[in-house]
Amino acid sequence: MKINQNHFNLIENYLFSEVADKVKKYSEKNPDKKVIKLGIGDVTLPLCKVVVEEMKKAADEMSHKNTFKGYGPEEGYLFLREKVQDYYNKKNVTLSTDEIFINDGAKCDIGNILELFSQDNYVLIPDPVYPAYVDCNVMDGRKIKYINATKANDFLPLPARENQADIIYLCSPNNPTGAVYNHKQLQAWVDFALANEAIILFDAAYEAFIGDKNLPSSIFEVENARKCAVEFCSLSKTAGFTGIRCGYTIIPQDLIYESKNLNKMWKRRLAAKFNGVSYIVQRGAGAVFSEDGQKQIQENIQYYKNNAQIISRALDKLNIYYTGGINSPYIWMKCPDGMTSWDFFDYLLQRANVVGTPGSGFGKNGEGFFRLTAFGDRENMIEAAERIAKL
Amino acid sequence: MKINQNHFNLIENYLFSEVADKVKKYSEKNPDKKVIKLGIGDVTLPLCKVVVEEMKKAADEMSHKNTFKGYGPEEGYLFLREKVQDYYNKKNVTLSTDEIFINDGAKCDIGNILELFSQDNYVLIPDPVYPAYVDCNVMDGRKIKYINATKANDFLPLPARENQADIIYLCSPNNPTGAVYNHKQLQAWVDFALANEAIILFDAAYEAFIGDKNLPSSIFEVENARKCAVEFCSLSKTAGFTGIRCGYTIIPQDLIYESKNLNKMWKRRLAAKFNGVSYIVQRGAGAVFSEDGQKQIQENIQYYKNNAQIISRALDKLNIYYTGGINSPYIWMKCPDGMTSWDFFDYLLQRANVVGTPGSGFGKNGEGFFRLTAFGDRENMIEAAERIAKL
Repeated sequence: MKINQNHFNLIENYLFSEVADKVKKYSEKNPDKKVIKLGIGDVTLPLCKVVVEEMKKAADEMSHKNTFKGYGPEEGYLFLREKVQDYYNKKNVTLSTDEIFINDGAKCDIGNILELFSQDNYVLIPDPVYPAYVDCNVMDGRKIKYINATKANDFLPLPARENQADIIYLCSPNNPTGAVYNHKQLQAWVDFALANEAIILFDAAYEAFIGDKNLPSSIFEVENARKCAVEFCSLSKTAGFTGIRCGYTIIPQDLIYESKNLNKMWKRRLAAKFNGVSYIVQRGAGAVFSEDGQKQIQENIQYYKNNAQIISRALDKLNIYYTGGINSPYIWMKCPDGMTSWDFFDYLLQRANVVGTPGSGFGKNGEGFFRLTAFGDRENMIEAAERIAKL
Repeated sequence: MKINQNHFNLIENYLFSEVADKVKKYSEKNPDKKVIKLGIGDVTLPLCKVVVEEMKKAADEMSHKNTFKGYGPEEGYLFLREKVQDYYNKKNVTLSTDEIFINDGAKCDIGNILELFSQDNYVLIPDPVYPAYVDCNVMDGRKIKYINATKANDFLPLPARENQADIIYLCSPNNPTGAVYNHKQLQAWVDFALANEAIILFDAAYEAFIGDKNLPSSIFEVENARKCAVEFCSLSKTAGFTGIRCGYTIIPQDLIYESKNLNKMWKRRLAAKFNGVSYIVQRGAGAVFSEDGQKQIQENIQYYKNNAQIISRALDKLNIYYTGGINSPYIWMKCPDGMTSWDFFDYLLQRANVVGTPGSGFGKNGEGFFRLTAFGDRENMIEAAERIAKL
């Protein structure tokens, strides 16, 4: 049996294990110091009550013969797809329910969708980047081009002639930079994709953090995006679902490439390789979209956003450049005094006992930058902000 | 953007929709007739109490800050992998926990594992077959060879020189035939795979239906299988998890191909493309392996097996050839009087108001055969058996 050799072009990313290692060593040497972790990319607040209650009700349904549910539809239950449809309606985006596919979080489908595309395509990926985009294409042997996200473009790169590619990854609000594209900028990407018969894979995992009503929280708010974009969303950060696993993938019926309908191809792919998301999880996800659910998740999101504001204000006072922090749980700051990302990591750990994530771990343009996250306790945020201010 | 053209070599399988269509038309014309469905491949008994209670407890954990769980390990929680390890220990199969990967049902991983293998491999698939094996390889563009499962080999084909291939699918107890390989037969496959540097993808989704202690319920009960086999298992049929979605994939550390360790490759693949199974689902799965859980699921399995026995006895009396029905929820019967699968379907529907699945839908060797399943109510089974006997 012959191995997929592309697999060995994967680069090991030791970013988070190296961070953990350094923190461990420091804490062992300095047991009296209280280390505050702002490096975590995971939510910390518990699930909303209404979600938990709905999941328990669904579990009970499964214990009675008359309400037991076996195999569900691969694309997800209609009750949930209709709720997602309503959610988009409120953004003035009209979707049919057959354009909505319930996924087990954005990560799987962001990789799986590539099965519909030839391996003989060029992929365009912004740098710095969430590493999964790169890895799943490397494993398939696709050629990758990078587009630079830098301070010069406020980490929101726009397409130019040299960025011609077949598959384009965009993430807004961005991980790791927290930067958010406006309508005009996204329109530029959509126009570029249409002109080049490219497809945009739009990662909207952090859309719920957008408070500014002038910013698009779905690429389908942009004209003609239905003809060139797939959108991936997750309830992971929206509703604390990182351990529950549910989201949705939007594949419009207007996506026609080489005369083929991608929506139909995806449905066929699901029939062969997926059996849908757990019924209990889908019921919990449904509760997120209820009136109570929306109210409860907004409280949590606001909590994280207030955390972000505490850090942002401290950076403002210090006159440090950063992106994110307003419509995003991430703050992407420039390391002071020309320090490298790892130099600043060490400095912050040793001098302030605060842990963040070195930007260089997200790509070459991340060098000299640093990611802080707003997931965590209020009092820790306040203390971290004070410690940073004192430095 | 260029489409994956292999996708268009997929053959649409209208088997189940055609069955549903014919039943609907018959029922509309004959509203007074009670149609009994023995075609369903889904469980019908509700979840065990202990599983439901454990999932509700897990949901409660998620609603408190101190017990909330965010991202879990991609390979699954250790508490569950240890339970799977114990389960295999009882079969005298020793696994380390890092050889056990928790999946969301066998179907996804049976397709996903192919990402580790070159598309330039020959695949060997028995006919008749569960269609997913074929589809996921067709989409990747791999060349498929079939091996004939027929009455002559009791639907348990053994390898011969002409079956040389790189990737070999085996399913035992088999879907759709219910046939089960014995140790000697599986050993022949393992020896063949080792001699040809091939890999066996072993689908053990129905292993819990094996009551005969002389039959292997894992390929790893066979000598040297650790060097050439991956095993996929699911709690779908074992514990009624078709709507809950959980199972496990066993990838031994001894699987070395072209000097590469498949277990390590899979772990890397998961890091890029998966975020693990829902915590709540994993807790429910854990309960399946508890003492109470094992007792409760055995009651359900025994219920289905008794159903199978009722049908089998009716066929025995009629002197009709069949496989399965003993260590499997499936009965694979020869259509009487040389009827084709669809002729017999129509005959049985119209004369006995019993619905089954035409064997020809599972491959060319299924022609002239018919699949009945034991999932359903006892009284319906008894009535169906009586009606068949009367014909």
